[in-house]
Amino acid sequence: MSPIKLAIVGLGKIARDQHLPSLAANPNYQLVAVASPNNKLEGTPSYPNIETMLREQPEIEAVSLCCTPQVRYEIANYALEQNKHVMLEKPPGATLNEVAGLMDLAQQRRLALFATWHSREAAAVEPARDWLVGRKIRKVQVTWKEDVRVWHPGQAWIWKAGGLGVFDPGINALSIITRILPQPLVLKDAELHVPSNCETPIAAELTLQGPGGLPVRAEFDFRQTGPQSWDIDIETDDGHLLLSKGGSVMHVDGKQTVSAPDREYANLYARFAPLVRERRMDVDLAAFRLVADAFMCGRRSVVDPFIE
Amino acid sequence: MSPIKLAIVGLGKIARDQHLPSLAANPNYQLVAVASPNNKLEGTPSYPNIETMLREQPEIEAVSLCCTPQVRYEIANYALEQNKHVMLEKPPGATLNEVAGLMDLAQQRRLALFATWHSREAAAVEPARDWLVGRKIRKVQVTWKEDVRVWHPGQAWIWKAGGLGVFDPGINALSIITRILPQPLVLKDAELHVPSNCETPIAAELTLQGPGGLPVRAEFDFRQTGPQSWDIDIETDDGHLLLSKGGSVMHVDGKQTVSAPDREYANLYARFAPLVRERRMDVDLAAFRLVADAFMCGRRSVVDPFIE
Repeated sequence: MSPIKLAIVGLGKIARDQHLPSLAANPNYQLVAVASPNNKLEGTPSYPNIETMLREQPEIEAVSLCCTPQVRYEIANYALEQNKHVMLEKPPGATLNEVAGLMDLAQQRRLALFATWHSREAAAVEPARDWLVGRKIRKVQVTWKEDVRVWHPGQAWIWKAGGLGVFDPGINALSIITRILPQPLVLKDAELHVPSNCETPIAAELTLQGPGGLPVRAEFDFRQTGPQSWDIDIETDDGHLLLSKGGSVMHVDGKQTVSAPDREYANLYARFAPLVRERRMDVDLAAFRLVADAFMCGRRSVVDPFIE
Repeated sequence: MSPIKLAIVGLGKIARDQHLPSLAANPNYQLVAVASPNNKLEGTPSYPNIETMLREQPEIEAVSLCCTPQVRYEIANYALEQNKHVMLEKPPGATLNEVAGLMDLAQQRRLALFATWHSREAAAVEPARDWLVGRKIRKVQVTWKEDVRVWHPGQAWIWKAGGLGVFDPGINALSIITRILPQPLVLKDAELHVPSNCETPIAAELTLQGPGGLPVRAEFDFRQTGPQSWDIDIETDDGHLLLSKGGSVMHVDGKQTVSAPDREYANLYARFAPLVRERRMDVDLAAFRLVADAFMCGRRSVVDPFIE
């Protein structure tokens, strides 16, 4: 099979750090163009927008969208209308209804649509899922606490309505637990802490419930200095599982059982190729729905202003 | 065919005003029991909860849930687990993820699940949809303004997180426009006005966009005294459509073309019977997603406290 002729839309940090190296290492793809309003990629035809790119290079079969969620819908919708397969960074859109619209369009046209969740590709996620099969889960604690000044410097959009605030990293944790735990997880309570000068929460606590009353607690905080935490603790009737470092390391009863180098984006592109060949959809919105549910049903408290 | 043996769960105002008369008038149903914590129905076996009811009367085939959204999920989930068909009042749950869970369960068990939207059954809704076919729509304005003190007296839950505030009636308007307009409608902007002593909005303005850039504006307000408005104005290239009185009256270019007595709940029960016979699902979440999207992406302003 000849490689899939793919274009990147939105040549920012995540595209350069993750998408380009993963594509370069995967013989199933040929990167044939880039569209980005302010950036060009040396050695690859670069265009200011997707319309120009698809007009100039109609041979493009698929596009991978690395732009911010706020502009993703219009671009994805245009790509599908032009009969191109689409891969979406997380979260798959700014709103749920626009993603539903993309799903309908992709289905009508029999095009691949892949809503990626890179954290689900962390090395220990599938091993954790496998380990949990057959065990009775008693309690789950998610602790996702990072220093926003270190990880999101200058990202003012994160504090604007629609930018999701601490749920921008928090949705990664939710994408993991909606993969490894029994479903559905339903929101029972949420508290959102919003700085007085921001529109989105800097911290949040969610109380979720899984089947059979399984208690799941999630704490997200952007104000963490010192040690950073991206941990999921799971107590079962037959041992304790700790997923740490964003899902890349696994301990069972204190003993490390999995630790492997990061292949998150390599795995995403490995998944996308068969979706394109078979014109299939892979869109799981459980994590995104939980975020929307937290905004819809959560209580809000005003906290100290955030000054970067 | 023998009538469907149906039970009501949650014997409050909406059950007595709407569900009981519609059931009594429909030979496809036999009301065999009622479950409600504090109310009994004279002449019909009444139970304090669904567990007791289904244990005592295992012949029940379907349940219609008229309880508040906050308790609906646990009850609906239990009913499906007991292999009963389920009809849900609007909105179909407190959160999106719990409705997704119900859908999965109903599908696994091949049970009917009906998320009702009573406003879609208003007399002029289908005629409006038909009239719009083939016309180019230029602009849509939704005006849903009512006096909360008149229509929701003493309903403190509406002001608590998860109670949706002005979206409780507003979702009715959204259920109509997601039926009659081209889809998807995506949220571009939202402003939520929250009283200083409440957790949910007393008023909201949404800017939506339909296919081809169609502008749709919705204004919801609970502070309306004097004349009440439940109107949808639609400008097309070939005339002007006004849906008023919550979808029950239609004017084209100022001339009334439809006005009929209320048969909303009668229509809902007419739809549910074939779903039960054929074990099918009818769950359209577009309106509910739009509400969640507005909470997730909307800006908030604090307004005067609400004192009933």
